[in-house]
Amino acid sequence: MASTGDDRRPKYQRIADSLREAIQSGEYGPGDRLPGENDLIAEHGVARMTARQALGVLKDEGLAESRKGAGVFVRSFRPLRRRGIQRLSQEQWGSGRSIWSADIETRTLTVDQVAVSEEAAPEHVDRVLDLGQGETVCVRRRRFVLDEKPVMFATSYLPTSVVAGSAITQKDTGPGGTYARLAELGYKPVHFREEIRSRMPTRDEAQQLGISAGTPVILICRTAFADEGRPVEINEMTLDAASYVLEYDFDA
Amino acid sequence: MASTGDDRRPKYQRIADSLREAIQSGEYGPGDRLPGENDLIAEHGVARMTARQALGVLKDEGLAESRKGAGVFVRSFRPLRRRGIQRLSQEQWGSGRSIWSADIETRTLTVDQVAVSEEAAPEHVDRVLDLGQGETVCVRRRRFVLDEKPVMFATSYLPTSVVAGSAITQKDTGPGGTYARLAELGYKPVHFREEIRSRMPTRDEAQQLGISAGTPVILICRTAFADEGRPVEINEMTLDAASYVLEYDFDA
Repeated sequence: MASTGDDRRPKYQRIADSLREAIQSGEYGPGDRLPGENDLIAEHGVARMTARQALGVLKDEGLAESRKGAGVFVRSFRPLRRRGIQRLSQEQWGSGRSIWSADIETRTLTVDQVAVSEEAAPEHVDRVLDLGQGETVCVRRRRFVLDEKPVMFATSYLPTSVVAGSAITQKDTGPGGTYARLAELGYKPVHFREEIRSRMPTRDEAQQLGISAGTPVILICRTAFADEGRPVEINEMTLDAASYVLEYDFDA
Repeated sequence: MASTGDDRRPKYQRIADSLREAIQSGEYGPGDRLPGENDLIAEHGVARMTARQALGVLKDEGLAESRKGAGVFVRSFRPLRRRGIQRLSQEQWGSGRSIWSADIETRTLTVDQVAVSEEAAPEHVDRVLDLGQGETVCVRRRRFVLDEKPVMFATSYLPTSVVAGSAITQKDTGPGGTYARLAELGYKPVHFREEIRSRMPTRDEAQQLGISAGTPVILICRTAFADEGRPVEINEMTLDAASYVLEYDFDA
């Protein structure tokens, strides 16, 4: 931030801000070593604790990471931009492309774990999908990996009465994925709701996503609706927050 | 989650899940005392550490909080639902209502701090707003409070060349707020982009938002565009993640 007449930011924050700007402008690229505590002390005339706090800010923000004995480096993992709205538009899945290909641009997001099963519906899923008495759901659990690092878990729930016998119950749902198959079954998704929360990961989540200390998860719960507001899928996603920027573009 | 044949969840997680369901179903309401460690030990036949972990899960998720010597209680602060898209539709601000009133339903979200100033633009703002050489920005810093708890900071940047002399440079922007004024000035916002990230708060942010331990912040950066893609406002928001659910509703 450009300094102003009454800059009340504490010193460590000002140093962190200037380092952040240098990272954002590309002066320090992914994997580059940042100035160390001694460099910051010499350059800014601050105490060691202040220099440490400044670097701590960037680590807390997921911009930098310590490597033992070597210093503090710009995180080389670039966040993935997830475009919520274009990603789900019919042009994407209508033409047989995976909805995920909109996200990844030149990088390769792959599913490294898939499990599909028929289960009793969790209560909150039962309530939203408006299932018949005792009706089960098809549950699709997937883990997504980018540059060999797990970045997201997704668990989809679909009414068995809708998807039974289709490729949705197989590991490979075929071209265009689940939404193309739902369309063929007469339940084309026409409306989506995404609800977003953030919290600290559970121990399990941290382990399974390989999340660094001080990094939250973002939870996205997406509900897909077919004609007449019929809910046909709930997809609960758990994202490593340091790996993602979510984007929503919309008209007034 | 309804239990299935192969429930591999660890015990503490199963206990946490059942307590979460009881909270979500309303069995335990806001402010209610949850079963304590001794209750969970007696009921589930688990070790104290397991009972403690189960309650820890709910605290990490922001659903429960400890009160010294009294036990663990359902957090009485209900998250605010922020509807990203409807909230910004012209019907809202076009008719003189604050864009915020869509959020709050029956609860009262108020601005308890406002500061307006003319400043040099931070570099990332300069780049996005496409300012003229040396052009300054009008900076509006606000803090929003719900039920007397601070829940969000927002800092808006608008080109001085666009807003000079208007109520946007005053603390009170008048009916319909900044967007209604921009429309009067010939820069009606017609398109929005919201970018969302999450990270741990800085010390300052935690203090100023009164954030409990183990709670991240959600960052929303909104850019408002007038006709021909002219960016007219950047609004950087910092939200207490335990206080918010963000919702985006959109058609395929």
